[in-house]
Amino acid sequence: MGVRVIDWEGDWRGHALLLDQTLLPLECVELSVSDVQSMHDCIRRLAVRGAPAIGVAAGFGVCLSLRTLSTENVSQALVRVEQACALLARSRPTAVNLFWALERMLQHARAIAPACENAVRFAQRLLEEARAIQREDAAACQRMGELGAELLRDGMTVLTHCNAGALATAGVGTALAPIYVAKSQGKHVRVYADETRPLLQGARLTAWELQTQGIEVTLITDNMAGRVMFEGRIDAVIVGADRIARHGDVCNKIGTYSVATLAAAHGIPFYVVAPLSTFDARIPDGSHIHIEERQPEEITEGFGRRTAPPGVRTYNPAFDVTPARLVRAIVTEAGVIHTPDEARVSALLRSAGRLG
Amino acid sequence: MGVRVIDWEGDWRGHALLLDQTLLPLECVELSVSDVQSMHDCIRRLAVRGAPAIGVAAGFGVCLSLRTLSTENVSQALVRVEQACALLARSRPTAVNLFWALERMLQHARAIAPACENAVRFAQRLLEEARAIQREDAAACQRMGELGAELLRDGMTVLTHCNAGALATAGVGTALAPIYVAKSQGKHVRVYADETRPLLQGARLTAWELQTQGIEVTLITDNMAGRVMFEGRIDAVIVGADRIARHGDVCNKIGTYSVATLAAAHGIPFYVVAPLSTFDARIPDGSHIHIEERQPEEITEGFGRRTAPPGVRTYNPAFDVTPARLVRAIVTEAGVIHTPDEARVSALLRSAGRLG
Repeated sequence: MGVRVIDWEGDWRGHALLLDQTLLPLECVELSVSDVQSMHDCIRRLAVRGAPAIGVAAGFGVCLSLRTLSTENVSQALVRVEQACALLARSRPTAVNLFWALERMLQHARAIAPACENAVRFAQRLLEEARAIQREDAAACQRMGELGAELLRDGMTVLTHCNAGALATAGVGTALAPIYVAKSQGKHVRVYADETRPLLQGARLTAWELQTQGIEVTLITDNMAGRVMFEGRIDAVIVGADRIARHGDVCNKIGTYSVATLAAAHGIPFYVVAPLSTFDARIPDGSHIHIEERQPEEITEGFGRRTAPPGVRTYNPAFDVTPARLVRAIVTEAGVIHTPDEARVSALLRSAGRLG
Repeated sequence: MGVRVIDWEGDWRGHALLLDQTLLPLECVELSVSDVQSMHDCIRRLAVRGAPAIGVAAGFGVCLSLRTLSTENVSQALVRVEQACALLARSRPTAVNLFWALERMLQHARAIAPACENAVRFAQRLLEEARAIQREDAAACQRMGELGAELLRDGMTVLTHCNAGALATAGVGTALAPIYVAKSQGKHVRVYADETRPLLQGARLTAWELQTQGIEVTLITDNMAGRVMFEGRIDAVIVGADRIARHGDVCNKIGTYSVATLAAAHGIPFYVVAPLSTFDARIPDGSHIHIEERQPEEITEGFGRRTAPPGVRTYNPAFDVTPARLVRAIVTEAGVIHTPDEARVSALLRSAGRLG
């Protein structure tokens, strides 16, 4: 990308770095984040966003609780980790990667604590774990890109919703990874990007990211998706995910379900690209996913000035759920699940060691 | 409404008045329009919008060409009318009511010219014709409201797109008319309003208009339409139209086709409410409708500040076409066309004297 989306600078006393995505595409500002509360706030206000990137941010966020250690012992450090996990878990409710990363950090902390000679070593080993989450995410993105690129032919046009690109991960993205890999294979793939109201991640992030990477991108408003499909401009839809249930229902940015329904009505394949950390095997289907509802101002004053009458009632769910029956395939780093259902999702998770 | 959307003040030397809809909902400014070029510009920049209101504005616009008459004779006045019609016809390409009203004014002018003793009388009679268009539109709205209200039961929730309310007509609106009439009958009907990007007519106009009229309205972004249908919140969709082809295909604000497709996928009835002046019997189907494409800035800088990267490619069709097969019924002032097709549309137009 040429910019760092999420990273850690220095040793265990260092700090997290992240690109402030609320300022894109007009400003490219790197934030230095050095305490847990600040990381919580960055996640909450969407300075860092995208399910996989939130997972990586959560890992580094836990490490931030240990950078000011001085005379504490390992048990005291473990308490800090537990408190950091509890705080970070309250930042956003929907993306499961957040909870997955916090759980992984917490379990690791508890597992290594007894064997750590001192708190510094404990902090070092937790930073290694957070770095591992980051590294594994980058590798997963690359692998999803390779598997997803097999679904794309030269000359195809893909519609995407929200941003599930490099800006949403520690690597080359999820939904956009196949497009980058296809490009590196010499395939010419064009993209239509839904602007993705209310927060315009498509306009602000996806259009900017694809432009930066030399991919031909056309920006449309969300309500044009049906029209461009009707006009025969779209060969495939590819989106990311914030949580995937055991039956294959996909929770993703609000508007994804509309796009999936429109794609089905036009016989256009609808693909989801998401790492294994996005699957939540504890829930059978989408009805069990808690959908974050955000403040009305995102709709009524989303562009800095008021565009709706004062006092108007709004409904602002940040996500929706696309039933598995509308999903042609889910691309993961461990393989592609075609026409997903409980048996196929479980089989993949089991073969990847992610299910009991 | 308590405000005048489009009107004429004074005798044939008077001027048109219109509510500047680009400033709503924050400012309620009445514009005085006194020459043809200004009316053309008002239509073009959407100060007046909505297919029926544009028709009324076009009628008054023609009259504006005659208010400065002094020593001209009737043939010279007729030339002015012809020039006004030519100019106004270039304001916007899609809404057929514009061309219908201009054609009606022109034919009337040519018909009465030989019998007019002088240019003043000619101007007076043309103003009467423009007033008749205005009056007939108001009556048509009321009648459509009555017929449409029969489709609504107490407690229903309706989703609408764009603004086809009082602000779009010289009366109580088209799509919103049934809701107003239902309310006057004591039925409690709630509305979800799509904000309707890029120009936010739903947020700026429909939410404001319904709030003003005491109707419970919830504002959502366009991409939430699928989700609210999925959640069972919507009992019916009602929209207006800018042009309806002989087979019943409906051209309306961009995004209408997406909403219609989503409604079909959820088994929710999709209704169109439009006066006979919206039908274009010369074209068989929607593929013959010229769709206005507007400037990229409506997408990239729609809210006063830039929200997309500089130089990004956009696609900005202002309208789309909903095939007749997705339309449960079209409500006109002359009756309701259920499951519209060429035979049923033609039958209604013929019985109303609008076809051959």
